[in-house]
Amino acid sequence: VSAGQQHGAPLAIGIDLGGSQVRAALIDRAGKVLKRSAVATEAAAGPDIVIEQLCAVAGEVGEGIDRSQLAGIGVAAPGPLDSETGVVLGIPTIAGFVDFPLAERLTSRLATPVTLENDGIAAALGEWRFGAGQGHKHLVYVTVSTGIGGGIISDGRVLRGRKGMAGHIGHMTIVRDGALCACGNRGCWEAYGSGTALAQRAQARSKTAPGTVLADGRIVDARGVFDAERLGDRLARELVAEEASILGVGIVSLLHLYSPEVVILGGGLAHAFDALYPGIASHVAEAAMPAFRDAAIVRAALTGNSGLIGAASMVFDAVPATTRA
Amino acid sequence: VSAGQQHGAPLAIGIDLGGSQVRAALIDRAGKVLKRSAVATEAAAGPDIVIEQLCAVAGEVGEGIDRSQLAGIGVAAPGPLDSETGVVLGIPTIAGFVDFPLAERLTSRLATPVTLENDGIAAALGEWRFGAGQGHKHLVYVTVSTGIGGGIISDGRVLRGRKGMAGHIGHMTIVRDGALCACGNRGCWEAYGSGTALAQRAQARSKTAPGTVLADGRIVDARGVFDAERLGDRLARELVAEEASILGVGIVSLLHLYSPEVVILGGGLAHAFDALYPGIASHVAEAAMPAFRDAAIVRAALTGNSGLIGAASMVFDAVPATTRA
Repeated sequence: VSAGQQHGAPLAIGIDLGGSQVRAALIDRAGKVLKRSAVATEAAAGPDIVIEQLCAVAGEVGEGIDRSQLAGIGVAAPGPLDSETGVVLGIPTIAGFVDFPLAERLTSRLATPVTLENDGIAAALGEWRFGAGQGHKHLVYVTVSTGIGGGIISDGRVLRGRKGMAGHIGHMTIVRDGALCACGNRGCWEAYGSGTALAQRAQARSKTAPGTVLADGRIVDARGVFDAERLGDRLARELVAEEASILGVGIVSLLHLYSPEVVILGGGLAHAFDALYPGIASHVAEAAMPAFRDAAIVRAALTGNSGLIGAASMVFDAVPATTRA
Repeated sequence: VSAGQQHGAPLAIGIDLGGSQVRAALIDRAGKVLKRSAVATEAAAGPDIVIEQLCAVAGEVGEGIDRSQLAGIGVAAPGPLDSETGVVLGIPTIAGFVDFPLAERLTSRLATPVTLENDGIAAALGEWRFGAGQGHKHLVYVTVSTGIGGGIISDGRVLRGRKGMAGHIGHMTIVRDGALCACGNRGCWEAYGSGTALAQRAQARSKTAPGTVLADGRIVDARGVFDAERLGDRLARELVAEEASILGVGIVSLLHLYSPEVVILGGGLAHAFDALYPGIASHVAEAAMPAFRDAAIVRAALTGNSGLIGAASMVFDAVPATTRA
């Protein structure tokens, strides 16, 4: 047993390395968040500075905790990353993380075993164990924010694939030769369904739509579209209906590809779940093959913390079954 | 132990229920086909007649085999089917198989335990154990014929999902609001990449392309296109390049979705693997995210028998590990 790794220890620390925030939480085996800390990511400063940020938030939530109580530290980061070797392959939104051995660097810096996981998979795990996926054997977690990501639980196990890179669901093609995606490919689901894509459509169309509150000249974001929709704005209603339809197209594919019992929607756009749900459900009802139509589509229960809690809970997972508490 | 179920028995029978042929094979634990039988499917005659056909081909390959030598019978059939309950939910190409308890009916008729599996998953299993997927932990099997189907091995296990319906990869959308698919949805990969779709494009374009051997008025099938391509026919070369590009679009999505080490191409179009490979590989090289580009793309090794052999080998799988030979 490595120094600091305590089988059966009741607590774990989760860290979420995001493009805008670096966050940490201390959780117990029931998934309860006991303490949290966050700081704005120094996204342009390079890995050394960001590593210091990760250590700082982890240190804050771990302060005063007896080492014997801590099972370990789990880190969620944007993919693609190789969770088998703990190496980040590249993070578009944070400078310098190219082929970067993040798990190794943090393990040595924190003198505690660190496990690295793709943030979509970590969030799927969090929702499965403690959120909207509890009691299911098969689920797909979809996060829709600036991009689209996700993670899959199938047959009662986390689906990992080679290098742990399965589940990059935002990068399936839904429009052949379509819009350019941040990944370099064309027509990805993310390029049409992300909050970023929705905001871009809103911005473009507000210039010609008469009488919309999404007026020309102001910056329109996804939240602004949903706010305007609730006020009855006609353009906003059209934009929300189209967004729901685009999400429905991808979700129908996911049903056929993974056959989940439940699709869990997380990320920034999950705040607008009630506005999006009818359009998604009606697309599933008409486009999915009949045997797949009764899968449930629900909102994430842990909202912004699915990945953070899931990352922490991985550490409990890593404990050999024979010595498990 | 049910009558006829012999743990550790050295032989198994596989049956493949296809739209054009009903086939059976006797295999040993090394996947070697010892005996085979086939008959044209009475696709319009209804389940009772087809059940008799299944029993006839199974009886033929099992003739003279001592019951103690037979581990069981595995059946592969077109999906969607519920492999947990052994119920076929609907086969578009064979009349009367709607919510049909095929495993139960065959078990009672043959007095031998029968296991039912989606034909794409059975073929993936066959290739994994005895074909092009040997030694891999993560693979995607893609069959391209009249339709597109498949099956996934991930993390060293068969990916099943709810009701065992995971892996309906032909029915992911690649063109939103695109061409109508046999499943009722629009824009499915199958509607663009199947041999049927290729033949339809050939038929349509041959009417206006000057000097093609794919002359107007004759029926053109996928095989005819590849034959003409080998002869240097210009239209045929364009059609093959486009088919490779369409297959490449879907395969890139599959890499991102499942992160396999290898993609195995089977089905009728696998005969034209050498003609299609360069176009598929170049699309993967430019469109897949860098971390996914080194996955191998290979031709199925068991050609037309992947599903038959995979279905038979399931029976060995079903034997409890503790009593395994």
